[in-house]
Amino acid sequence: MLYTFLDFAGTFAFAISGLRMAAHKEFDWFGAFVVGLVTAVGGGTIRDLCLGMTPFWMTNIDYFIITLSAFVFVLVARKVLLKPAVVTFFIFDTIGLGFFLVVGYQKTIDAGYSHAMAIVMGTITGAAGGVIRDVLLAQIPLIFRQQIYAMACVFGGVLYSICLRCGIPLTITQIIAASGVIAVRLIAERYKIGLPRFKGFEVGDNDPQRTIKKKK
Amino acid sequence: MLYTFLDFAGTFAFAISGLRMAAHKEFDWFGAFVVGLVTAVGGGTIRDLCLGMTPFWMTNIDYFIITLSAFVFVLVARKVLLKPAVVTFFIFDTIGLGFFLVVGYQKTIDAGYSHAMAIVMGTITGAAGGVIRDVLLAQIPLIFRQQIYAMACVFGGVLYSICLRCGIPLTITQIIAASGVIAVRLIAERYKIGLPRFKGFEVGDNDPQRTIKKKK
Amino acid sequence: MLYTFLDFAGTFAFAISGLRMAAHKEFDWFGAFVVGLVTAVGGGTIRDLCLGMTPFWMTNIDYFIITLSAFVFVLVARKVLLKPAVVTFFIFDTIGLGFFLVVGYQKTIDAGYSHAMAIVMGTITGAAGGVIRDVLLAQIPLIFRQQIYAMACVFGGVLYSICLRCGIPLTITQIIAASGVIAVRLIAERYKIGLPRFKGFEVGDNDPQRTIKKKK
Repeated sequence: MLYTFLDFAGTFAFAISGLRMAAHKEFDWFGAFVVGLVTAVGGGTIRDLCLGMTPFWMTNIDYFIITLSAFVFVLVARKVLLKPAVVTFFIFDTIGLGFFLVVGYQKTIDAGYSHAMAIVMGTITGAAGGVIRDVLLAQIPLIFRQQIYAMACVFGGVLYSICLRCGIPLTITQIIAASGVIAVRLIAERYKIGLPRFKGFEVGDNDPQRTIKKKK
Repeated sequence: MLYTFLDFAGTFAFAISGLRMAAHKEFDWFGAFVVGLVTAVGGGTIRDLCLGMTPFWMTNIDYFIITLSAFVFVLVARKVLLKPAVVTFFIFDTIGLGFFLVVGYQKTIDAGYSHAMAIVMGTITGAAGGVIRDVLLAQIPLIFRQQIYAMACVFGGVLYSICLRCGIPLTITQIIAASGVIAVRLIAERYKIGLPRFKGFEVGDNDPQRTIKKKK
Repeated sequence: MLYTFLDFAGTFAFAISGLRMAAHKEFDWFGAFVVGLVTAVGGGTIRDLCLGMTPFWMTNIDYFIITLSAFVFVLVARKVLLKPAVVTFFIFDTIGLGFFLVVGYQKTIDAGYSHAMAIVMGTITGAAGGVIRDVLLAQIPLIFRQQIYAMACVFGGVLYSICLRCGIPLTITQIIAASGVIAVRLIAERYKIGLPRFKGFEVGDNDPQRTIKKKK
């Protein structure tokens, strides 16, 4: 019950995130729906394909229905939406992130892969949907230049791994890991903490894969 | 025979679409070929990977040969190409869309998935190639902002599903479904019918995944 | 031993290429790491998914460690990096390309596919990582408009195929194929040889998938 609620709340919040960005780029209804859907299920799809499994949404139409609900919600509510609702989305989005990390981690472990790979797959589950969303919007993925987002997943995954090795029961481990993700995300948001910008050396004349000068 | 002809005509038309767009972005020969190929086989590849099957072009070199033919055709014919040819491409592209919907639908049903999922996979088969093409061109996918295109596939898929449930023989069902796709596309093109633009609410300060301000 | 060294050197050079480009786009540490990783393993991942295999990096954490080394190297060395190092990267990148072609070719043959498909998969192994990198940077893939890069892989693959048919022992075949890739790349770089630009015919009013006019 709780599991299902968290799954649906996270999916709903992720879909909202995709729908809102699509609206900014003047997408039509179909385009907005696709971007919302892909934001919600994209991370889990990459995970399942890498694990050699059938993408989870292919045997369960619920994720389409949730995205459709988010679609209708945004259409109907946009005139009357108040600040508290925006805060609620942020909370949902953050809870969804924590939940997706746990789902991705556990599914990878169950498939027989290492804990290190479970951290990777948990992070992909949480963060890759937003990357695909931004690729479809033809913009550089936000999570590559923005506040802590994917790193919160990595942190939660490390917590998960430590708890399991310490023999902590699975349910408690999962609560700790998800809480870790949520805590890091909230703290980073509150205090505007971000990762440092990555600076490379200058590209010389012999750059192996050099950038074409753009003609203006 | 007819099946093969439709498959090849659709592939040819889709490849032409990719090649033409690549030409506008100053791609070299290799880049143009890849974009043409990906436009033609991209949708079916995503479908096959999701279904857990080997991508269809891996056991059949024909799709490379058709793309190469389209490539040579565009190179040779570009000076002498007349308006009727452009109309012919539109017809081929539309027939290809109807055909791809039918192929994707049937393959998904044969693999044991639901009719709802067959509609999704049929639409992906028809429309996802163009999305990948636009991603490689670093532009927002046309079908997210343009006239009816993917929705014609959805409509054809719904027809397919209804016909099957009514006990209509498979061949007739497939003809009806493909015709439905083609009819919707032609009518939408003729009368310039499009979906409404999706409008979201304003993004507040607490937007969970906010856009980075672009420095100019 | 040599095999492992070549694999790691190629991975390192490809990761460096991704990291350097990420630095130009003001990515943060996490974003840069992901782009470096994807550049290094992206081509092999697409190959493995198409072959129905588990992506090679899921059972071997080494590729993450090499990317991390490349990351640290770029961070530390960027102040003191001299011209010879840039040339070294070019050499590594080229050797990596030749090596990746051989790995992709052999893996595809071993999986029972045709030599033609092995050439395709070898080229994907070598060149697709850079394509994904550029998609994540929201720019048109360099290899679609740039000097000979992917075509060097195709050439090496054709050599591989010819050698095998002539009964040349596998190890020698692989050395010849990789050398062919490297030679073509070096010659193209030295004499600035590129493929011709692809020119299409004008897009008419009835263009099947026409470009939306960008509002400025």
